[in-house]
Amino acid sequence: MERLAKYAGKKVMVTGGLGFIGSNMAHRLVELGADVLIVDALLPGCGGNPHNIEGIRDKVQISSSDLRDSDAMGQLVKGQEIVFNLAGKISHIESMRDPFADLEINTRSQLSLLEACRAHNPDVKIIYAGTRQIYGIPEYLPVDERHPLQPVDINGIHKMAGGWYHIVFHKVYGLRACTLRLTNTYGPRMVVRDSRQGVIGWFIKQALDGEEIKLFGGGGQLRDMTYVDDAVSAFLFAGVTDEVDGQFFNLGGEAVSLLSLVQLLTCICGSGSYAAVDFPPERKRIDIGDYYSDYRKAKRVLDWMPTTTLAQGLQRTVDFFRRNKEHYW
Amino acid sequence: MERLAKYAGKKVMVTGGLGFIGSNMAHRLVELGADVLIVDALLPGCGGNPHNIEGIRDKVQISSSDLRDSDAMGQLVKGQEIVFNLAGKISHIESMRDPFADLEINTRSQLSLLEACRAHNPDVKIIYAGTRQIYGIPEYLPVDERHPLQPVDINGIHKMAGGWYHIVFHKVYGLRACTLRLTNTYGPRMVVRDSRQGVIGWFIKQALDGEEIKLFGGGGQLRDMTYVDDAVSAFLFAGVTDEVDGQFFNLGGEAVSLLSLVQLLTCICGSGSYAAVDFPPERKRIDIGDYYSDYRKAKRVLDWMPTTTLAQGLQRTVDFFRRNKEHYW
Repeated sequence: MERLAKYAGKKVMVTGGLGFIGSNMAHRLVELGADVLIVDALLPGCGGNPHNIEGIRDKVQISSSDLRDSDAMGQLVKGQEIVFNLAGKISHIESMRDPFADLEINTRSQLSLLEACRAHNPDVKIIYAGTRQIYGIPEYLPVDERHPLQPVDINGIHKMAGGWYHIVFHKVYGLRACTLRLTNTYGPRMVVRDSRQGVIGWFIKQALDGEEIKLFGGGGQLRDMTYVDDAVSAFLFAGVTDEVDGQFFNLGGEAVSLLSLVQLLTCICGSGSYAAVDFPPERKRIDIGDYYSDYRKAKRVLDWMPTTTLAQGLQRTVDFFRRNKEHYW
Repeated sequence: MERLAKYAGKKVMVTGGLGFIGSNMAHRLVELGADVLIVDALLPGCGGNPHNIEGIRDKVQISSSDLRDSDAMGQLVKGQEIVFNLAGKISHIESMRDPFADLEINTRSQLSLLEACRAHNPDVKIIYAGTRQIYGIPEYLPVDERHPLQPVDINGIHKMAGGWYHIVFHKVYGLRACTLRLTNTYGPRMVVRDSRQGVIGWFIKQALDGEEIKLFGGGGQLRDMTYVDDAVSAFLFAGVTDEVDGQFFNLGGEAVSLLSLVQLLTCICGSGSYAAVDFPPERKRIDIGDYYSDYRKAKRVLDWMPTTTLAQGLQRTVDFFRRNKEHYW
């Protein structure tokens, strides 16, 4: 696409660049000819995997600095044109077990990065990866950006703060920051070893291993699924759109029940099975029921639409993990 | 009132108990015959003043532990029946100058206290002092609890997180916590040395000193004023009401323009004057225009109403500071 040609030669920093979405972003940026700096401290529980940049390792720069190190961030952001800010923890369960770690990584880190940008590169553009989790249990569907914010776990509270920092830094200091609120993103390089990055990755591993997938409450819950390449496109579009500054945007995708998703997945894999089970109490307490986003604002302002069907996306994901099992299992 | 008779002999902890609202709370609790533990580390910028408990010093216990010290909090909360959780920083300007200090004191502290309650006293009741600041620039007036949350500064983001911790700890762990969102509270023992706890305190000092009060933008902005005794009553009512758990409540009061307020204040003082001046840029960026709360939910659930008129409240406040000038100037 013509507007993505702007990335050729652009200096772009990707925080969390060894993680799921960050590494897919880095792959695409390399293809587009950008000058990519990955910043990733490979903190436990954040989903970073050095194998994620296999194939582009010699085409990117890598820093293992922690975002909380303001001095290091100050040096790194100097001269960058765009920061895709994808660093963070997304495990809901872990955020309840160790809320202080979640506070550090999702809240202090963001403040540190933004303070560094303000001091050392106030003209940089920053696109932050938010989450639909901050809307909590939907009061209506589809959920648009006007929906009340009512997080149901500690991770949601901290991600909400992280997103608002970007908006406040825009309003008060004029920093060119915005937030894209991701829904259920899936694809190559996601964490499949456990359910920390969401259940979909865990389902994929189980299906490929020929195991029985447990569907809490029968799997009737609706979720909207975004294939990672589509999510990456939204970030890339936002990075070259002035109008996004200081705003929130929902991403989204096809809404399916977890049961339908698992039926499609086991069919594509040719292995695995599924069974309905009761919700474990710690999951039930933070379950949000059906969820799907209204992403018409992103469509209008970014001219963005998800273009990968669920069947295509799952097929590509399964193919990737079949080829790269040893690095993800 | 009959329901406040329940406080006789009750074990009550007041965080931030040497601060403005906390110390007024402590005075009232002592009157009601409660067994009061004040927890206040007298952190700079939090408004604590040892003189605030003059008159009740030998009737309360005092701990100087920091809320961030989870072990100390664990020991302190054991055996308490109610925690009035008033510790925090409220300076908007300072939160922009040192956002990390604000993060520590308004966010990490709250998480630490709640984790201590969960581990050592899961049946305790907790009433948290939130702020109207998290609603940002009102989209409509009066602002009810359904108004979108859109903080305009770092302090607002952290207070928003602090309030949500209480709600999430209720939903996930059943902790009996709620949040009262304060508007512009004023009265004896408030900080008047500077405008860190809001402009009203600063106006009071200037009026008593016979100085000229500067009204940014002419002082046409509406603000709703709660006399501290009324705010304290709302906390006391919430402390003995089961129905509040897991909920937010706005407090409020008489809505007046800052100009009217200053005219009344200088009349009561018999000194001071005022003049319209332009907004300084750093203030203008975080100004929210007119604000007043809809507090009908508190009225319905807590049977609470502010009962002190602005003229009465200002008169009592001025009288207090005249008598105690040397400790507050």
